[in-house]
Amino acid sequence: MDHNFVDAARKLSAEYRDLNGSTFEILEEPPSALEFARIVHISRPVVIKGVDVPAMKLWDNDYLIKKMGDRLISIAVTPNGCADAITRAPDNRLYFVEPATDRMTMHELLSTLENRRKSSKRSKEIHYLQSQNGNLFSPNESCGEFEPLKYDVPEEIPWCSDALGQKPDAVNIWIGDEGSRTSLHSDPYENIYTVIRGTKHFLLIPPTDSWCLQERLYPHATYKRNSLSGRLEIIPSAGEGSQVRWSSITDPCQRGALPREVVPTHIALQAGETLYLPVGWWHYVWQSDLTIALNWWYDAELRGMSWVLLNFLRNPTSTILPVNTDT
Amino acid sequence: MDHNFVDAARKLSAEYRDLNGSTFEILEEPPSALEFARIVHISRPVVIKGVDVPAMKLWDNDYLIKKMGDRLISIAVTPNGCADAITRAPDNRLYFVEPATDRMTMHELLSTLENRRKSSKRSKEIHYLQSQNGNLFSPNESCGEFEPLKYDVPEEIPWCSDALGQKPDAVNIWIGDEGSRTSLHSDPYENIYTVIRGTKHFLLIPPTDSWCLQERLYPHATYKRNSLSGRLEIIPSAGEGSQVRWSSITDPCQRGALPREVVPTHIALQAGETLYLPVGWWHYVWQSDLTIALNWWYDAELRGMSWVLLNFLRNPTSTILPVNTDT
Repeated sequence: MDHNFVDAARKLSAEYRDLNGSTFEILEEPPSALEFARIVHISRPVVIKGVDVPAMKLWDNDYLIKKMGDRLISIAVTPNGCADAITRAPDNRLYFVEPATDRMTMHELLSTLENRRKSSKRSKEIHYLQSQNGNLFSPNESCGEFEPLKYDVPEEIPWCSDALGQKPDAVNIWIGDEGSRTSLHSDPYENIYTVIRGTKHFLLIPPTDSWCLQERLYPHATYKRNSLSGRLEIIPSAGEGSQVRWSSITDPCQRGALPREVVPTHIALQAGETLYLPVGWWHYVWQSDLTIALNWWYDAELRGMSWVLLNFLRNPTSTILPVNTDT
Repeated sequence: MDHNFVDAARKLSAEYRDLNGSTFEILEEPPSALEFARIVHISRPVVIKGVDVPAMKLWDNDYLIKKMGDRLISIAVTPNGCADAITRAPDNRLYFVEPATDRMTMHELLSTLENRRKSSKRSKEIHYLQSQNGNLFSPNESCGEFEPLKYDVPEEIPWCSDALGQKPDAVNIWIGDEGSRTSLHSDPYENIYTVIRGTKHFLLIPPTDSWCLQERLYPHATYKRNSLSGRLEIIPSAGEGSQVRWSSITDPCQRGALPREVVPTHIALQAGETLYLPVGWWHYVWQSDLTIALNWWYDAELRGMSWVLLNFLRNPTSTILPVNTDT
């Protein structure tokens, strides 16, 4: 039995696709806890309609601006719309680059997004509210930046909490437009994702394809604003230790970017719709309009085989190779 | 990424054990459907007390003999207690050997088991009621050999049916003693196993160890009774096509029989106790007394990753090697 892991994994990917296809189920109404427990066990993406979130009826611009008032909120800003993404720096090396953070009011954020979208000059900086730190609810934070909005958002999704036997680990609000996209990655969470306004696009790839998504170790960097020029610059983080494991596939929508065997699923999630995005599924995400969304993250189940198999498929030998070794 | 599959799988086995240990949970009462759905997702063996089966209060020898009367039932018989097991034949080749079948009344079966156990001559043939074809209930059979007993057995386990969203595929009765054992194998079923009388022993190994359980292709054979001598003989099946894939580990309880990395779980299931034996778990089973048991088999979930991963771990390259190639 001295078989090659890649040969075996390629066969696994093919069998998974043969058995499951690349389609997704649509539920016309939210499942019961028991129905959702069965869905979690199957661990495939499902679009769910009719999830009751008060924000859907309330969150027009006027309401958001009035409720949030003069509070400053943290907004990711990049020159190209790629926050938390692999980017080539002026030194010609590739880095995992985190966004700079601008502090502004809700009014300023919505105006900035609107102005950039109206303007013909599309070279401007891209803003994206994506703090994803449990900015609405989190067990560790007493109160986030969006405290005035939290009364419009359920603290948990009851059928999901009951199915998983736990409360969410974080609830987040996301505001962005077609200028920004989220690079291909997977999370250690079961994810319930609801669109409030606009359209969110998900390109989804099952964990059985993890082995061919070219994860490498990238040095860490952050966009910082140069105090003289005002421009955003990539500043590598100090220390050799700050390496980030990330997929090398920067734009999976580009023709030929994905390995031949991968057949992604595209879901265009409309306002009022909710996506169950199972733990370990790879996702590349963008908006086709000004889009406001919410998500509830629940910790992954660590007991049993699922968790160790997700890691096994990503990283069969604990040796993720660094990039930039020949530059 | 030209890693060796075995190195990767060895790491997976170790991580599974680090995270899950080799212990099992005991529930003092049956779970709700929702609780059991969570258990199925974790897919680890659980002992459940208090499952209500009328047979537990009814099935002494007198009752069974009276109810079954003169009906003939099919009983597996072997010279050594190893039905459906890898056995070396007089031609010195290894075969997967199915038992002969004797037809007898319940009275004869219980007397046969009792007499052999009382007798000092332990070389006698071993009988085991193990027809496992849905002998109590099955969606395809209108009525099995044990029809008079079926009123004492629930046709389904409600919390299991609800959790899995389906009815059992088969319900079986098992009667045997310490003379017989069931060789190491795994089933494509979720299994609910209840002991009515006696003690059933399970040696359990998780599917993450499948890759090292030495499955090979064995030629098929059957014990048949020689019409002259009356003795049981191994008769190879006709045709080269009749190959059976089976673990080469004939007695996993023997010191050194299991690969070093495998840490099995031993569960001695007492009368009144029920085992949830998850799909794909390897089990070697024996009795320490005259033991009567029931089981409910539910079809495995084929959607999602579990099923393809179970196959992947058993057989990463579709090439299970035949035995006997050098004899």
